[in-house]
Amino acid sequence: SEIRLSHDCVCYREIKNEDDCAELQKDINTLGNLATNWGLDCICNPGYYYTRNFGGGEVTCAKCPANQARITPVERELNGGLPDGTNQRVCRACEAYTWLNSGGTRCVRCTDYLKTTTNLTSCTCIDTQKADGLCLPSLPTLTNVITTVPLTDGFAAQFSQLLDKQLKAAYLMCQENKNETACQTLGNMCALTFFEYEDSSPKPQHVTCTRILYRRIVQDWQSFLPDLYFTRDGVVAQDGDRVLDDESITTTYTFDPPMNIKILAASYSQNGEFLGIDSVLGGKIQLCSDTTTRLNAAFVFGTYYSHSCSIQAIDLWDQTKYKPEFYDLFLDFELEAGRQIYPVPIKLNDYLYSRKEVNQETDSKDWHLVKRFFLVDNIATTGAATTAGAQPDYVRYVKSISMNLKLVGSTSTGQIFPPYISITYGTVSLVDAQQGASISTSFSVDYEYSTDKYRRDFQISVGTLSTLSIIYAGYRTWVWSKRAGKPAIDFQTIINFLFFVSGSLANVFFVITFGIAFYFLTFFKGQNTVFLFHITGLAEREWLALFGTGFALKCLQMAHMIIMQCTADVFLIDWERPKHMVATSEKKTGSNVSIWRTYFVANEWNEIQTLRKINQIFQIFAVIFFLNVVGFENVATKDPDGRIIKDSTSYRAVDSTMFRYAIGASVYILVAICQWIFFTLIYERFIEDKVRQFVDLCSMSNISVFVMAHAQFGYYIHGKSVHGKADTNMGDMFDMMRREEEDLCGKRGLLPDTEQQTFMMALPRKLRVKYETVMLPVALEGAGAVGAAGKSKDAIISAKTQAYNVVNKFLAGFVDHSLKEIDYVVKDKTLLESIMDTEFLDASEKGIFYNDDGHSFDRALFYGNESALVVFDTLLFCIIDLIFQNFVLAGVLTYLITELIAMGRDSGGRMNLAKKTLVDQRFLI
Amino acid sequence: SEIRLSHDCVCYREIKNEDDCAELQKDINTLGNLATNWGLDCICNPGYYYTRNFGGGEVTCAKCPANQARITPVERELNGGLPDGTNQRVCRACEAYTWLNSGGTRCVRCTDYLKTTTNLTSCTCIDTQKADGLCLPSLPTLTNVITTVPLTDGFAAQFSQLLDKQLKAAYLMCQENKNETACQTLGNMCALTFFEYEDSSPKPQHVTCTRILYRRIVQDWQSFLPDLYFTRDGVVAQDGDRVLDDESITTTYTFDPPMNIKILAASYSQNGEFLGIDSVLGGKIQLCSDTTTRLNAAFVFGTYYSHSCSIQAIDLWDQTKYKPEFYDLFLDFELEAGRQIYPVPIKLNDYLYSRKEVNQETDSKDWHLVKRFFLVDNIATTGAATTAGAQPDYVRYVKSISMNLKLVGSTSTGQIFPPYISITYGTVSLVDAQQGASISTSFSVDYEYSTDKYRRDFQISVGTLSTLSIIYAGYRTWVWSKRAGKPAIDFQTIINFLFFVSGSLANVFFVITFGIAFYFLTFFKGQNTVFLFHITGLAEREWLALFGTGFALKCLQMAHMIIMQCTADVFLIDWERPKHMVATSEKKTGSNVSIWRTYFVANEWNEIQTLRKINQIFQIFAVIFFLNVVGFENVATKDPDGRIIKDSTSYRAVDSTMFRYAIGASVYILVAICQWIFFTLIYERFIEDKVRQFVDLCSMSNISVFVMAHAQFGYYIHGKSVHGKADTNMGDMFDMMRREEEDLCGKRGLLPDTEQQTFMMALPRKLRVKYETVMLPVALEGAGAVGAAGKSKDAIISAKTQAYNVVNKFLAGFVDHSLKEIDYVVKDKTLLESIMDTEFLDASEKGIFYNDDGHSFDRALFYGNESALVVFDTLLFCIIDLIFQNFVLAGVLTYLITELIAMGRDSGGRMNLAKKTLVDQRFLI
Repeated sequence: SEIRLSHDCVCYREIKNEDDCAELQKDINTLGNLATNWGLDCICNPGYYYTRNFGGGEVTCAKCPANQARITPVERELNGGLPDGTNQRVCRACEAYTWLNSGGTRCVRCTDYLKTTTNLTSCTCIDTQKADGLCLPSLPTLTNVITTVPLTDGFAAQFSQLLDKQLKAAYLMCQENKNETACQTLGNMCALTFFEYEDSSPKPQHVTCTRILYRRIVQDWQSFLPDLYFTRDGVVAQDGDRVLDDESITTTYTFDPPMNIKILAASYSQNGEFLGIDSVLGGKIQLCSDTTTRLNAAFVFGTYYSHSCSIQAIDLWDQTKYKPEFYDLFLDFELEAGRQIYPVPIKLNDYLYSRKEVNQETDSKDWHLVKRFFLVDNIATTGAATTAGAQPDYVRYVKSISMNLKLVGSTSTGQIFPPYISITYGTVSLVDAQQGASISTSFSVDYEYSTDKYRRDFQISVGTLSTLSIIYAGYRTWVWSKRAGKPAIDFQTIINFLFFVSGSLANVFFVITFGIAFYFLTFFKGQNTVFLFHITGLAEREWLALFGTGFALKCLQMAHMIIMQCTADVFLIDWERPKHMVATSEKKTGSNVSIWRTYFVANEWNEIQTLRKINQIFQIFAVIFFLNVVGFENVATKDPDGRIIKDSTSYRAVDSTMFRYAIGASVYILVAICQWIFFTLIYERFIEDKVRQFVDLCSMSNISVFVMAHAQFGYYIHGKSVHGKADTNMGDMFDMMRREEEDLCGKRGLLPDTEQQTFMMALPRKLRVKYETVMLPVALEGAGAVGAAGKSKDAIISAKTQAYNVVNKFLAGFVDHSLKEIDYVVKDKTLLESIMDTEFLDASEKGIFYNDDGHSFDRALFYGNESALVVFDTLLFCIIDLIFQNFVLAGVLTYLITELIAMGRDSGGRMNLAKKTLVDQRFLI
Repeated sequence: SEIRLSHDCVCYREIKNEDDCAELQKDINTLGNLATNWGLDCICNPGYYYTRNFGGGEVTCAKCPANQARITPVERELNGGLPDGTNQRVCRACEAYTWLNSGGTRCVRCTDYLKTTTNLTSCTCIDTQKADGLCLPSLPTLTNVITTVPLTDGFAAQFSQLLDKQLKAAYLMCQENKNETACQTLGNMCALTFFEYEDSSPKPQHVTCTRILYRRIVQDWQSFLPDLYFTRDGVVAQDGDRVLDDESITTTYTFDPPMNIKILAASYSQNGEFLGIDSVLGGKIQLCSDTTTRLNAAFVFGTYYSHSCSIQAIDLWDQTKYKPEFYDLFLDFELEAGRQIYPVPIKLNDYLYSRKEVNQETDSKDWHLVKRFFLVDNIATTGAATTAGAQPDYVRYVKSISMNLKLVGSTSTGQIFPPYISITYGTVSLVDAQQGASISTSFSVDYEYSTDKYRRDFQISVGTLSTLSIIYAGYRTWVWSKRAGKPAIDFQTIINFLFFVSGSLANVFFVITFGIAFYFLTFFKGQNTVFLFHITGLAEREWLALFGTGFALKCLQMAHMIIMQCTADVFLIDWERPKHMVATSEKKTGSNVSIWRTYFVANEWNEIQTLRKINQIFQIFAVIFFLNVVGFENVATKDPDGRIIKDSTSYRAVDSTMFRYAIGASVYILVAICQWIFFTLIYERFIEDKVRQFVDLCSMSNISVFVMAHAQFGYYIHGKSVHGKADTNMGDMFDMMRREEEDLCGKRGLLPDTEQQTFMMALPRKLRVKYETVMLPVALEGAGAVGAAGKSKDAIISAKTQAYNVVNKFLAGFVDHSLKEIDYVVKDKTLLESIMDTEFLDASEKGIFYNDDGHSFDRALFYGNESALVVFDTLLFCIIDLIFQNFVLAGVLTYLITELIAMGRDSGGRMNLAKKTLVDQRFLI
């Protein structure tokens, strides 16, 4: 069932598709009196007149007398009368000096402006008087004029048939006849040559056509010409900075309500015709197509807009799709008097002034700004061929347009300097285009504001806080050296000082960078009258550097913490007294107390080493959930829109790294705080507290934990059983537990009748010396003897056992006050000591046990360093996101890395535990 | 620095902005001889002629003699001669029966078609002959004609000035003068009235204008008219199914290379003018704007396209933006003969046939299809006001267009039936629009293919596999009942059977749904010549139901597994012999063997209960990473593009739930398999194997684990120490470990000189009876006595201890072959027994210990049920994604849910362990 086609007149409805029709039409044009219009109408060919015309195929034509080609078929006179008074069409020859118009409907003068030549007597114009289709009385002599257009992208400048053809005529018509369109044409030619200009006084040597001509005209009739330049005295170009620091735009821009930057574009066709003035909304000056909403988002005040796309180069040759139009832009704003328009300065990056690309200088003082530009030039380089289908050899197009807006500094009135548009052109050749090249083009809108005040504040805060943090690090080092029993500053002290500096600087840098990011996020998104934008350039780089440095220093701090924890001295004191045995096969040296309780306690200690206060998995999942699934990350866009849920059809500005940091870190820390509160106030109280369980286990198993975090400082968990024994059978265990539940026995505390089981210890020097005397040889031997012979192994085992028994007895004696020389007292810490985390009293002779809140020994574990860990995780999360711009990936990697670190801490801690407590590593599972 | 403006002619350059200009222009028009053209040119007002015209402001005009309004200024004659032979413009009055044309440049007949009335003598036409600006000889008498247009969305049909004005003239011009545009106008009127038609034989009572008129003309001159209907005999509408099952489109559509559906649109203006035929690419028939790439994606074959947007209703009144055009669509395809076009059937959902909305029937047989439609009608309801600015009261627009393509069934030739376009119109009133209403419009492209064969295969496979799986479940139940020592089918057996059925059906359903999804994903994306599309409708719903059922059944299976594991009987046999003690303060009943080794082993067993073979966190993270970060989820789009990384600027088709399931489950299972391989082959061998470590610990601690998974079936870990004791001090422990390392002692196996420590056990009934006799009262008492008085507690403790000692002795005796009545033998399982996971030999009298691969007891833990868990996790992950369409959220929720399940299993298992091994729950930390 194809479409039915009838057979009426020659071509009429004869076609099946458009190609066929074109074929037929071509044939018929050469043969008969009828052509076809899309195969649906019949029309008379030129030189024929209708004798019958009922439309469709009902048309007959007759040929005009063949005396000459310049003949017009006349059906009615101008006054509507029938020719010769009869109902008969005639053909009429054109009079002298006239010619058929393009439609073939009437005769006209050879050109519209032939009349400018008063002495012209025929339709033939002599060559010296011809210009751009006009016959001029005399052509002007133009010196120092070039008729080439500059190309970009490495193509050499090309001679332009168009400029050559139009130049003299436009100049004469503009200057002599004050023809408006001719003057506009001249202006367009300026735009086509990028306003190129060479000003070598006293006389210009070799300059482009337009500027110098323009200047000549300006002197004659300045006020009549289109106003294309920013000039100082009407002729000399004004310095760019003078143009741009104008404060006459008095509009107050706000984010709430959101405002548009209203830009109007006056457009002209290449031959100077004014095409109207209209808003740029709807993508008028954007080559890339997109939805109207997204295109218009470029002009929503405060939206950092950036849109680029790729276009098939050959499409640019299509003059209906990409019209060769010229634009003057104006900012439309309100003054008390009413609506005002302000010309938008255009900065052509390809502009040459005395062969220098002054507009590519960084200092805006050197810039020369203009007012007219084109989007696509697909006309200038059309070659010598004058046929209608001739194609330009090159097309120039805007490779990038960026509109730049700057706040008037040090005010909060939301006022802006004149926005300027920076344009870079690209060139593509017909040869490349025909081979399928494609070009890319971009449109962007950027905002800036003076960051001088910001940078001053930034530097002051970094300087002050860094100094304070270094002083604090010095204090921490002093505390540490006292605890480590260092009498003087040695190499180890300096190293420790550096680590402390890292830690405190890292915290300060985190606070500063996060504070800045959060400030900018909230104030940028929340401002009504605009007073700040995103920081850029140097200010942004400084911020990034501080962020990176903060993370690096935090890594050092983490390494320090882990190393300290993995080298702490831990010993498990077994309080169990040997049972009275019949002396049978037991060795003399061995007590008959089972080691399994020690194994159990060591195993549990090993398990809580990397226990975190917060659930790391839940942390990561919740953060990803809020940022990615709920969509908090949508807040990080560089536009005024602070909503979480964004319409997928609207434009989405690029994300700001700073805003991402702010929102990422905020969510991370908030989730961590919520978790911390939940675990501390609810979970640990009502569900389970693994640390408390461990202390209970110590009591049940009659074993104390003696942790020396530094040489002369540590933590003690008192686990002496209230029943005096634990190494017994199930019945006794049940019995003991029941007795304790029913309060039938003593209390667990170190001092009689107290519950205080955990202490911080400042230890006397002698204890440390004694401990090291016993332990160090064993530890060294054990480390050195790996793979040694069996005999030596036996020796090691017995030395280890020996050492274990000695240390156990010694430390138990110390805690029991049964050593004569080494003793201690139990005290409360003063408030100041607690706050400053130090000890004022000297413990080098007599140790001091400070009562604590039951959690001081957490500091030897991850559990007690949660805040440092959370800050590290936050920084890690944010820095990964900074690199990959993906919160999900950042979450995944953060988890994996923290897990690796925990694994490292775990195995380091396990090895340390095996070494220090002499429990075989195989039991630490 | 505002723009400078000069003061030349009256209005010339007098303006500051466009509003001012419009004001000025209005004033001047009424006053002088000059008007301004955008404030830049001066032009003569109508009725004036130029005496000087140099463009710009250099224009002077003179008024034509004021004898009559019908006067034309003549500057040159038609043949180019000057009027009256002098260089002097004149004004010339129009002759009788002629009038000035709109441009005021010449006189024409009153209307172009006034000549159709041969007896017309003046320019004044009598009312009865007037029609649509024509003066017709006589107006035709049209019966049964209505001149209202139907509106949608609840608005009543409106009288149309336009239809009323054009109808008779168009009819007459088409019928009598065979005027092509008049016939097209008539066709457009058909489209405007939705081709409404009432066919009540023998005579139509009350019908719309167009169809009946059309029919009358058709009878006269059928071949001349635009072909708007699919008819059977040229008049009666063809059944829709007949139109749509045409197989004459012979193009083979392929995905690789990707092909376009080439649709051509012939467009007509409302008054019948043919505007050309062109591709629909570039959004020609799409009201929503977007990038060209995205708009054109609609016509890429195989892309399920759907795009909707919201438009400010008032914009629809803008006839330059939304042109009131009419379209005929054609499919452009290749036949051997060359290019062919095939008319695209249009299904207007608002079409009325004898007042029935036949096109809304589900059966395509009832449809009446046409060939012409409009996108926006903003002309038909323009009211009686005849001024130029009159606005229509209502605008009709396409609320939704969907193009439907269907594969010719049972072939793999990529051939399609004629695609049809289904259109639903919306209506918006001017009142609403002016109050800011906005309308939404959508464009979609859908594909289907015959799923008959698919559904047959689906039903067969579901039926067959379900039957097999139920048989298998029956077998499993039989095995279970043997192991549980059930002599007959009781209630518990039936319940278990149901659970087994759930499990095996769940697996079958998973395999089927996943298989189908994966098949469609790979074959849809991978096909060259197209032979299938996404399943829709009933077929898709069946698939979804199977998926959901599979998940629900899997949940039952999981619950079953967890309950079974949490109720298994576990006992730790302590092999330690009491030490010989001096009888001092020890109680008589208690042995002096320390319970701590038992605590240690129980604690470790507790910890490995929910140990998974794969790392669940890494699993989730890796899955999210691959799907979301790497972008595998991009594969799930309903288009031929199977790439992972998609250009953000190109169109993204909606995701298919089925494809998401396929890709999500594939990635989940693949990651799980990789992890399984890594953990089984590398991690467990070279790094650590927690299960193996547990067995080692048993040996070291001289404790065996006796797990009775079912009443008469279980697993045994032989942990009797090779040294005969373990309850000793550190020195001895080191010594024993060294001796074992150096192979100075026996082997760990149950049988002498073997390493076999783990067994499956088929247990004799007597053992079970004895065990229950001892244990059950204690367990029941313990459960019932919570919160009882102290005395009773004492009793419970002693009963528990008693029971522990008895069971310990009893089971140790059983394993040691020291019980007379109850004994066992050690055997290897036959291959068939292993494959069928059963035991053939009867163990009710004498137990059988089967050697295993060291991992049989895993089945009492999560560790040995990894595959079931992974399938459950996969289904859970996919079903959450099905609900939320978000893999990140699915991952997060899957983790949380599996973690909750593991916690449930953990606490259930801990309670069970405490109950069965009599170890206090406080030690299971």
